[in-house]
Amino acid sequence: MSAAPLEFWFEFASTYSYPAAARIEAAAAAAGVPIAWRPFLLGPIFRAQGWNDSPFNLYPAKGRYMWRDLARVCASLDLPLREPSVFPRNGLLAARVACRFADEPWCPAFVRGVYRANFAEDRDISDPTVLASCLTAIGQPAAERIAAANAEKERLREQTERATALGIFGAPSFTVGEELFWGNDRLEAALDCWKKRNP
Amino acid sequence: MSAAPLEFWFEFASTYSYPAAARIEAAAAAAGVPIAWRPFLLGPIFRAQGWNDSPFNLYPAKGRYMWRDLARVCASLDLPLREPSVFPRNGLLAARVACRFADEPWCPAFVRGVYRANFAEDRDISDPTVLASCLTAIGQPAAERIAAANAEKERLREQTERATALGIFGAPSFTVGEELFWGNDRLEAALDCWKKRNP
Repeated sequence: MSAAPLEFWFEFASTYSYPAAARIEAAAAAAGVPIAWRPFLLGPIFRAQGWNDSPFNLYPAKGRYMWRDLARVCASLDLPLREPSVFPRNGLLAARVACRFADEPWCPAFVRGVYRANFAEDRDISDPTVLASCLTAIGQPAAERIAAANAEKERLREQTERATALGIFGAPSFTVGEELFWGNDRLEAALDCWKKRNP
Repeated sequence: MSAAPLEFWFEFASTYSYPAAARIEAAAAAAGVPIAWRPFLLGPIFRAQGWNDSPFNLYPAKGRYMWRDLARVCASLDLPLREPSVFPRNGLLAARVACRFADEPWCPAFVRGVYRANFAEDRDISDPTVLASCLTAIGQPAAERIAAANAEKERLREQTERATALGIFGAPSFTVGEELFWGNDRLEAALDCWKKRNP
């Protein structure tokens, strides 16, 4: 049996992707659902909607609420959170690495490390030395991984185009075939959907 | 003991306010939490953000997703849903009635009837005869209630100003003192918050 996995779409600048990335492995394992990690970029999708910044910056009331709500969500998961001094941070290089190595067993730990750097440690994840330290911390040869990721830039572009084609407009999102779920709080519904389709 | 109630902020044009209004009484009763019904208008709040229409119309990918997601949410609650032929509908008069009579025991049934008219029966809730039928259906003297509501228009305006002051930017929202929760899927978190503050 090799059912198509539930696809987890995330963007490194996305705040609610942080708790989703932190909890998806355990939640999926408990539900017996296979997961595919799908980094993509929200920038091109937001620009197509006429936004040149995060909606949380463009709409201040929404932004203020998001940080408060995220603090509650992270507290409930015992997940450290420090509001970054720069938001959103550019996750392009991190997404290239995660995209190039999405099927490697170390990739989830890398992804979580990058989110922690951004949202718990206030480090600049657009800086290659910060990403290198995230790779080194999990025993990966940093320079080699980053070079390999930069050598295949089109992977991430294609994946972002696929996200757009699936109707994705925010992160995190989850897809089960064509069925789309948006938001950290829709993970359970997405897992249920996968189980119904793969009895 | 007369603890301040959890405040339930809703707008009659708001799609996710429909399942929230349908389930809040039972959920709050089960949790032992007192509720205050707070209709308000999103129009002035959206206009202040530069929107002259629902964001679900302004951003089509988000709109397509919302209708699909709402269908799943309503199905899980056994709540009928038919996508209205006009969206959003003007809920001004309905909100005036709900605002004027928010403390009456029949108000929740009126609110649910208006949501059903809009989102399950595709009726024009801006039409006073439709609202009159919603009042008549629950045994209320329609003309008298509508006249009383229209005689105190400032109530709804003041309540919308209070919503803005609380940082509310969408519906449904729930407040426990200054603590804000946005979205039908945050009802449980809001109930938990109220219980923690009123042990």
